[in-house]
Amino acid sequence: MSEQTNEFTEWYLQTVQQSELMAYSSVRGSIIFRPDGYELWEHIQEEFNKFLKKQGIRNAYFPMLIPQNFFMKESDHVEGFAPEIPWVTEVGDEKLEEPLGLRPTSETTIGQAFSDWINSYRDLPYEINQWANVFRWEKKTLPFLRTSEFLWQEGHTAHATEKEAYERTMSALDEYERLCEEFLAIPVYKGKKTPSERFAGAVDTYSVEAMMQDGKAVQAGTSHYLGTNFAKAFDITYLNKENQHVHAYTTSWGASTRLIGALIMSHGDQSGLVLPPTVAPTQIVLMPVGPWKKNPGVMEKLDEIFYNLKEAGYRVRLDDSDNTPGYKFNEWELKGACIRIECGPRDIENGHIIVKSRDVADKQKVAFEEIDTFVADELTAMTPRLLEKARKRVKENEYLHINTLQELKEHIETCKEEDKTPGFVLIGWDGTEETEETIKEETGFTTRNIPFEAPIEKEVDIVSGKPAKHTLWIARAY
Amino acid sequence: MSEQTNEFTEWYLQTVQQSELMAYSSVRGSIIFRPDGYELWEHIQEEFNKFLKKQGIRNAYFPMLIPQNFFMKESDHVEGFAPEIPWVTEVGDEKLEEPLGLRPTSETTIGQAFSDWINSYRDLPYEINQWANVFRWEKKTLPFLRTSEFLWQEGHTAHATEKEAYERTMSALDEYERLCEEFLAIPVYKGKKTPSERFAGAVDTYSVEAMMQDGKAVQAGTSHYLGTNFAKAFDITYLNKENQHVHAYTTSWGASTRLIGALIMSHGDQSGLVLPPTVAPTQIVLMPVGPWKKNPGVMEKLDEIFYNLKEAGYRVRLDDSDNTPGYKFNEWELKGACIRIECGPRDIENGHIIVKSRDVADKQKVAFEEIDTFVADELTAMTPRLLEKARKRVKENEYLHINTLQELKEHIETCKEEDKTPGFVLIGWDGTEETEETIKEETGFTTRNIPFEAPIEKEVDIVSGKPAKHTLWIARAY
Repeated sequence: MSEQTNEFTEWYLQTVQQSELMAYSSVRGSIIFRPDGYELWEHIQEEFNKFLKKQGIRNAYFPMLIPQNFFMKESDHVEGFAPEIPWVTEVGDEKLEEPLGLRPTSETTIGQAFSDWINSYRDLPYEINQWANVFRWEKKTLPFLRTSEFLWQEGHTAHATEKEAYERTMSALDEYERLCEEFLAIPVYKGKKTPSERFAGAVDTYSVEAMMQDGKAVQAGTSHYLGTNFAKAFDITYLNKENQHVHAYTTSWGASTRLIGALIMSHGDQSGLVLPPTVAPTQIVLMPVGPWKKNPGVMEKLDEIFYNLKEAGYRVRLDDSDNTPGYKFNEWELKGACIRIECGPRDIENGHIIVKSRDVADKQKVAFEEIDTFVADELTAMTPRLLEKARKRVKENEYLHINTLQELKEHIETCKEEDKTPGFVLIGWDGTEETEETIKEETGFTTRNIPFEAPIEKEVDIVSGKPAKHTLWIARAY
Repeated sequence: MSEQTNEFTEWYLQTVQQSELMAYSSVRGSIIFRPDGYELWEHIQEEFNKFLKKQGIRNAYFPMLIPQNFFMKESDHVEGFAPEIPWVTEVGDEKLEEPLGLRPTSETTIGQAFSDWINSYRDLPYEINQWANVFRWEKKTLPFLRTSEFLWQEGHTAHATEKEAYERTMSALDEYERLCEEFLAIPVYKGKKTPSERFAGAVDTYSVEAMMQDGKAVQAGTSHYLGTNFAKAFDITYLNKENQHVHAYTTSWGASTRLIGALIMSHGDQSGLVLPPTVAPTQIVLMPVGPWKKNPGVMEKLDEIFYNLKEAGYRVRLDDSDNTPGYKFNEWELKGACIRIECGPRDIENGHIIVKSRDVADKQKVAFEEIDTFVADELTAMTPRLLEKARKRVKENEYLHINTLQELKEHIETCKEEDKTPGFVLIGWDGTEETEETIKEETGFTTRNIPFEAPIEKEVDIVSGKPAKHTLWIARAY
């Protein structure tokens, strides 16, 4: 893994471009989602929409432009987002009276709408979701992981009680965990953000954090308990059963196209993308090998297999181009096709095909009559197998016994020497921003989250040595 | 129909708000798509994605912001769109070096990308589609039909030959016709736009035009043959089989959320929305009637029916609120539920339910054991029935025998007196902009399109009296 580790970001940048997931655009930090990249997002959307439907949360769509005065209504919110907001100031060649911001998130617009729509306790809970493009002009950008424009879903809900709002905050977080682990095979760390890492305007922010192959963290989904902060800013009140006007409790939660970045950085290898069949644009690729052009039986058989698999609903491609088998192997490994099926004249004679799974080194022979069963079983097995592999890697890069800043620095140094990743480190924390600041300045590590169930509880703060109030994960992060 | 005709726009504005399809936002001309409104769009997306998939056209996503210099590359294009483009000039409080426009359409961005991706004849055809939000700051706005921000799909394709590009232009147009008629039950007029109504930068623009209940036209989808105009502006060239660098031929085609407006204006009535089951958020609504609270058998039966219909995949709702039956009838008619099922204690005794289809005046009794079959048949029959009804209305408002401007004016006057719509008028046209201008100034009618197959061919221009070069449809339009 050394090559990939040392130049992991370089590997990533080459892989996402060469596999044709994305291309750079002429707008700073914005990328083009090419069809294979966009399809990954479409599958994530389908899966998340199932959760929404089951929960009775409906999709809606709100204006992308937000009047400047909306931002001003929640002071923490505007402070957090102001530096990154692109502003429309002109239309044609006429100046607008009030600048319009490109949404970085929609609490303000949706808060305003909730204020109109919610009047009685009978209207609660009020729960909606939006699939949308959002804008945050970040200084450093990286394809999928941090882009000026990105795609996401944002759930927004209003409730009669703190308890209900908190439960929704948690159920959204649980769904992000499930989506990452079961659907994308990305193991995550679930927990609460420290106050300095909270969403601007939230009472509490929770996250799922994923560890990439270089040990760095990607925040894969966040869920915010907003209390009555936005309800007060936007006057979201309702008449309760006792005939009193009271504020609703709101939540918001989002996951974005950075999941695509996490997916690639979790599973990819030196040959390119490794994708779970749940999202892979190509689940199966068929290709003729050997002197197949002289033996029409080869293409006849492949056409038959292709047709059957397609009928069965698989995402299957047949590569009958003139490229060499070696070229085709490389191309489809780069693109992350889950299963490769080869067939040549001799295979036809012997009544089998040659199969290779993207994440397994060996090829195997599968008799013609067993192809359907084999493919179904193998595609079912692959996602949990990738999750298992990722879990193992992640566990190997967890460090639980570092108790002082000095030990942390030594750990980082040792990892560097041994060409390992410094991974996720569990620390004790006294709850002060000073500790977070010191760790960041001295090591580049940032606080990820306070796990709901820490593997062990820490006694003392890693910097101050004072009694720890919390145990939390720290890591370098994208 | 008089009430609706006289104040059709007023009826429309009230209906789209009261049925909770949309709400106004604080941004001029931008609307909020509430869940029922957005769901109409989701069903249209699903249906159109089937066409794309069958054709091998893949979805992608391009940046929303477009650098100013991109617009400048195709002179007709910039001239057509410039007055309506919102510009981002600042981020945070820093001024941008080059303003970024909010996309009104993506020929420029995608043209630039095609130029990078298309190199050889082997890369052609290159066909992609984008689902996106777009911006056009129009002076007059109307919910769904004309909004500053709207949602659409835009297909963009590049081909080796004029013939292939023309075929794609036509197949997209045919799909819009099919989508409107078979899926949305909206009959359309298919034809070619006059040069003055062409898409900015196109060689030819084709459209499907729908006639609303007030006789006004809605352009429901457009397909553009772009020739080599954008290929030249963005240097989309490829190496052909003869090893020459030549320009590709491109097309683009789009349909937007204005289809939702066309849907409502085509089928709605004084009670509210009438929606084909293909897109209706509520296909079936169940409600208890009579003294149902004292007879638990009523809700038991309705729960059973609800569960069965839900399991069968229908979009079904059960209204067991405390509102009166009359209130419920009104509410679900307003919202366009396709089938209403009532059940009271006496119905339980008699082993049947009472059913009313939204578009049929009479109620009928359906025996318990026949509910499944009845619902399946009725929902299948409703979309063609709505199309048939709309076709009849449209035919009645087609005028084929108006040959002079004077006759046109008299026609308009007569319709006004008789409280009829002036509808679509077929005229002869000498091909000059002068005729189009005169008609517009004197009657408010604009040219819709030149039908591929006119019902009759016109001999002389309606204004100049000169020999007609084309026969075309004119109408007032949204």
